[in-house]
Amino acid sequence: MRIVAADTGGALLTEDYEPVGLIATAAVLVEKPYRTATLSVVRYANPFDYDMSGRQAVKDEAFLAVELAREVKPEVIHLDSTIGGVEVRKLDEPTIEALTITDRGKEVWKDLAKELRPLARRLWEETGIDIVAIGKSSVPVRIAEIYSGIYTAKWAIDYAREHGKVIVGLPRYMRVELRPGRIRGESLDSREGGLFGEVEAETDGIGWELYPNPLVRRYMVLEAWRE
Amino acid sequence: MRIVAADTGGALLTEDYEPVGLIATAAVLVEKPYRTATLSVVRYANPFDYDMSGRQAVKDEAFLAVELAREVKPEVIHLDSTIGGVEVRKLDEPTIEALTITDRGKEVWKDLAKELRPLARRLWEETGIDIVAIGKSSVPVRIAEIYSGIYTAKWAIDYAREHGKVIVGLPRYMRVELRPGRIRGESLDSREGGLFGEVEAETDGIGWELYPNPLVRRYMVLEAWRE
Amino acid sequence: MRIVAADTGGALLTEDYEPVGLIATAAVLVEKPYRTATLSVVRYANPFDYDMSGRQAVKDEAFLAVELAREVKPEVIHLDSTIGGVEVRKLDEPTIEALTITDRGKEVWKDLAKELRPLARRLWEETGIDIVAIGKSSVPVRIAEIYSGIYTAKWAIDYAREHGKVIVGLPRYMRVELRPGRIRGESLDSREGGLFGEVEAETDGIGWELYPNPLVRRYMVLEAWRE
Ligand SMILES: [Mg+2]
Ligand SMILES: [Mg+2]
Ligand SMILES: [Mg+2]
Repeated sequence: MRIVAADTGGALLTEDYEPVGLIATAAVLVEKPYRTATLSVVRYANPFDYDMSGRQAVKDEAFLAVELAREVKPEVIHLDSTIGGVEVRKLDEPTIEALTITDRGKEVWKDLAKELRPLARRLWEETGIDIVAIGKSSVPVRIAEIYSGIYTAKWAIDYAREHGKVIVGLPRYMRVELRPGRIRGESLDSREGGLFGEVEAETDGIGWELYPNPLVRRYMVLEAWRE
Repeated sequence: MRIVAADTGGALLTEDYEPVGLIATAAVLVEKPYRTATLSVVRYANPFDYDMSGRQAVKDEAFLAVELAREVKPEVIHLDSTIGGVEVRKLDEPTIEALTITDRGKEVWKDLAKELRPLARRLWEETGIDIVAIGKSSVPVRIAEIYSGIYTAKWAIDYAREHGKVIVGLPRYMRVELRPGRIRGESLDSREGGLFGEVEAETDGIGWELYPNPLVRRYMVLEAWRE
Repeated sequence: MRIVAADTGGALLTEDYEPVGLIATAAVLVEKPYRTATLSVVRYANPFDYDMSGRQAVKDEAFLAVELAREVKPEVIHLDSTIGGVEVRKLDEPTIEALTITDRGKEVWKDLAKELRPLARRLWEETGIDIVAIGKSSVPVRIAEIYSGIYTAKWAIDYAREHGKVIVGLPRYMRVELRPGRIRGESLDSREGGLFGEVEAETDGIGWELYPNPLVRRYMVLEAWRE
């Protein structure tokens, strides 16, 4: 199977590890054996002006995934929204009402569907590719999350080079490593069977340190500075 | 302590990773230091004609565990049903009603108890061995799950040798490895402290690949083919 | 950040792995990079006469943490009680009522607050240090839990030296290792990013074995005996 997935992650943090805003939406093409991405793209947000309600993220992810999918023609698109793998093009009000999710979740999806349903329907009519809201169960969504963390590290390097220093928080249980010419990211959850990613990046002249976020167990923090 | 436990796992999958049916019920004898089985037995199901409701699995497990227990005389039998470690021989209607489980779970157990309670009572009267429904908390149950995955790999090899190719899904977060003359299986959850198993098997002439199931995070897929 | 945290863990077990009582309350000072403690102290309980209701543990932890905090002057104290990071000095009845926890949890905290609120208020007035009930989200609390396991191993060694033999249960998914002159403990959860601890201890003349608790998955048991 060839699957495109997208996710948003990585946060700019204050000195006290308080989140300021999210940084990177990544879309990935994942193919067998489903351990990393064959291709990845990123769209950076402005963490200093970020809508933390979560609605913006799902929209950004859907639009970026569709853009990548029109290029690489996967069989299906996976979105990080756990509503049982429903096809987004089928999300009319009665279908949303029938989902076994919270009332709050239903309100969010009634709102999201206004933009995402036409997007999904058009893609499906023109290419036969479906968008499914499969969420946490999807390995490609997790790989997209890992890439959002790698791109967050890339953003942090560029920010540190310009402003001297930065602290970012990575997505859940993953680590990154700055290597010459590239950034490698890996899941820290051994149960996932070895998920990882790599992105080219200019890492020269940057010092860095990775350590556990003291306030949020199982999340790592990356500090980067100009040397 | 000498404990017998049983569990069912491993599924035949379609090319699209959809489950067709379960494959193997394993019963194991586990002794100190509780990391693997001293002895294991298997009963294969017909995955092409499998009742996925889950009721059949618990019955198969109980009968296979009792068979093994009559042979190896453990102190207790652990079943993979999480109802607080109650003795199965005590599961009359009022006791089931008083369990803190879902109404659906109570209906299932009222039905199961018809066959399993007499089985448990007879075993206890004749041998003093109790059957307890301890479920996920039991390490021997997890070891039985790992063995059901190893036996699923063995079934897959035999199937591939006869039919050319097969795809199976392993139980949660475990991997298998085909080695000369045997199959080794290991938990991928580092928190479990190193649980594993091994079964003899003719592995010659079989090619194989293990990778994450893209649709079900933390579950691995094994492909095997005749070389 | 410099954080003091406390937690209680480690249990004396019977030959059948039934808990008798808890053993060690540890308080730790944790500093960047937040992977271990800079300093640790312990208070041993009497496991043969232990109130397992859990109320005693939180009180012991608060008093031991305050004692350490008055010495090392951290920015904040983390307690292992998951009520959303509220400051303990603010826990009057209306605030407790407004918490999104169980009714049982509210009753417990109304009772705890009688002693802990004055303690927290006094500390805050005199030093500016706040006590927050952040619970499982805190990495320092997890490090305190690991130290409670290490001190439990130390208690076990001393007990075995005097009485010949002992079995103790460690806190969740961690292991300990007896080395010459010290005990090392490590988290077994790879997602936590490498949390560990070390305590000096006389380990000569003691035999030991670490293995999974067969009745409680993801928890390890330590046996120690006089050689
Ligand atoms: Mg997401
Ligand atoms: Mg089972
Ligand atoms: Mg605790």
